[in-house]
Parts: sequence; C-alpha cells; structure tokens
Amino acid sequence: MRQFVVIGHDAPTTPEFSLDDLAGAAGRLDVLCRCVTSAFFLSHAIREDVRVHLVLADTYTVSFEGTELRRLNPDERSTAALVRNALEEREEAIGHVPVETSPGVSLTRCGFEATLDDVARDGTVVQLHEDGDPVVDVAPPVDPVFVLSDHHDFTAEETAHVESHAGDRLSLGPEPLHADHAITVAHNYLDTDGFERY
Amino acid sequence: MRQFVVIGHDAPTTPEFSLDDLAGAAGRLDVLCRCVTSAFFLSHAIREDVRVHLVLADTYTVSFEGTELRRLNPDERSTAALVRNALEEREEAIGHVPVETSPGVSLTRCGFEATLDDVARDGTVVQLHEDGDPVVDVAPPVDPVFVLSDHHDFTAEETAHVESHAGDRLSLGPEPLHADHAITVAHNYLDTDGFERY
Repeated sequence: MRQFVVIGHDAPTTPEFSLDDLAGAAGRLDVLCRCVTSAFFLSHAIREDVRVHLVLADTYTVSFEGTELRRLNPDERSTAALVRNALEEREEAIGHVPVETSPGVSLTRCGFEATLDDVARDGTVVQLHEDGDPVVDVAPPVDPVFVLSDHHDFTAEETAHVESHAGDRLSLGPEPLHADHAITVAHNYLDTDGFERY
Repeated sequence: MRQFVVIGHDAPTTPEFSLDDLAGAAGRLDVLCRCVTSAFFLSHAIREDVRVHLVLADTYTVSFEGTELRRLNPDERSTAALVRNALEEREEAIGHVPVETSPGVSLTRCGFEATLDDVARDGTVVQLHEDGDPVVDVAPPVDPVFVLSDHHDFTAEETAHVESHAGDRLSLGPEPLHADHAITVAHNYLDTDGFERY
C-alpha cells in the first residue's frame, strides 16, 4: 500500500466554488486534483494499492481509495467535481467517522494532525523535502505514507507533527517539484526498485 | 536543452471547443495541457531550457519556448486557453513559418513528421516506450528530444518515422505511464544524473 497525504492550505471547505477557476478562487484545488491523478493513473489502468488523502484547510479530509474508486477521470475538473460533491455532504460527517460521498471517495471532519495520526497506523511516514537524503541512497520504505504540501511550504506546526512520525526525510532530486510531480517520481522510484531485474 | 514532442491524435484544430470539457469534446486536450505543465514547472520556477511541441491532429503544432514564456499557469484550463488562442490565429500560419500567438507560444502549420524533422536538428531523438531499454542503464542523451503520444498508442507510421530518427528506445520503468507523468520522470532522470554528488 502506498499512501499520499496532501495538505491544501487554501483549499475550499464549502462546495460554493467554481470549477472554472480552480487555480484562483478555489484555492489552488488544481494542484490537489493533479495529485489525485498522479497517484492513481497508469496508462489505461488505476493503481489499486493506493490511497490519497486531501486535507482541506485543516478542516476536512477527502480520501480516495484505489480498490473502490469509480468515476475517476484524469482531468482536474472532474476530480474537483468529486471534491465538491464530497463537501456537499459535509454536514453528514460527524466526529471522525468518514462519510462515503461517491464510490471510493469519503469525507472526514479531520484536519491534518488527526488524519496523519490515523493514516500513520498503516505505514511508514516519509517526509519529502528538498533537504532530505537522496531517495536513491535509501531502501524503499514498507507501506510508505508520503506527506506533501501544496504550493505553500509546510508550517512549523505541520513540520513538527510530520517529524513526530517520520523515520525518513527524503529528497527526490536536486530540483524542487510540485506536489503532483513529486508523487509521480515517488511512484517511479518504488516501481523501479530492482528495475534492472525486469 | 530538453524537448518534448507530444502527439495529440484527437486534439482540436479549430478554437471552437469548450474549456469546460477538455477531456471530452476537446479530444483529451487535458493530457496535452498537463504535459506542458510537467515539462515547464518547478516549484515556484519555470524550466527555461525546455521546449514543448504539441502536435494537434497531425495538422498544426503549438510550440512553447521556456525562455520566452509568460502567462503560463500550471492548471489545465489556462494552458488550454493558450492553445485555443493559438488556434484562433491559424489563418496567419502560412507554409511552415511559425506565428507567435502569445509570449513564448507559437503555432506552425505542420503535422508530426515535419515537426519532428525540424526539432530533431537540435537534439537526439529518444522514443519512450514500455519495451525500451531501462533508462537507468543508459547514459543520458545530449539535448534529448523525447517523443510521446497521448492516450492512444503511436500509429505504425508514427513509429516508423520516430525510428528513422531515434537512437535510443528507452523505458522509464515497468509501469506504462501517462505522457505527462513520463515527462516528469524523464526530467527527474536527467536532474538526478549524478545526484549522489549533490
């Protein structure tokens, strides 16, 4: 299982946003949508052994479960519609109990810390950071939980919470990447472990 | 210089398409737009040493030049608007002379073969293919020109033309990737060549 927790600092917490302005008024929801696409899509297939958790402004988390997903398309707009649809049911999310809002998509009334604490039970938290150890020098973690941030840096509080979980702090390369591109590279790093044997 | 030629088999050749349906009526223009984003964007910076050529239904080619680009944003919709804007000036493109349609974006009345023949003069053509040699076993090419296809496979004619140029046929990993994800991995492969020295 590979999991990705993506922090959307400016992401919407109500469904009153336009699908026509994801990069503007919708608080860079375009980045989060591309993260979902990068995490799940292979050419003509979905990676089933993946979960993605989008943390929306530290208020709600929308989770995508690879084995259950239906109706996921690779474009930003249709993924944003799934997020909007999830937010329409936010009143149904009571306590920390997730509400399934479409097949394989659920919403939980949880901010970043509660989400990471929950997800970390099933894997090894890995912080992706440009100052981390080169990923090529490290054995791939078992059941990795990659934590990424949108177009903003992690806050000091977020970093402290990640570090309270994280064993490894890894860098994917010398260039700082967008979160969705980092997910693609992380997948490739895991896919090609031992690639010379193929 | 790193160049990417992306074939959009179903892409529009007129500007009469809706930005609201890039993955449908606009012939999977969403894939081509994400290719542009993957090729140019670093976190908070543009890769200047990059050119991208989107081949639209073997009729026009829209080229993006990293050193000249302005007004490029990472979301699909705004990139699609640049392509639509380019197509609005298609009557100005006479012969094989490019027309600049916005800063760093130009349109040429060229299909795939003419575009590749032109681009190949400035670099080494590399075919990305799941049956190619593992990229990790090969020294990075000088001034690579990566040729990719949208959600369709290359046609027999396209493959023959690429092979008439291509020195290397490389595979980026054991999983077949979307074109935009392949661009991200190709960049990382080149970025991290000698990464252990950083």
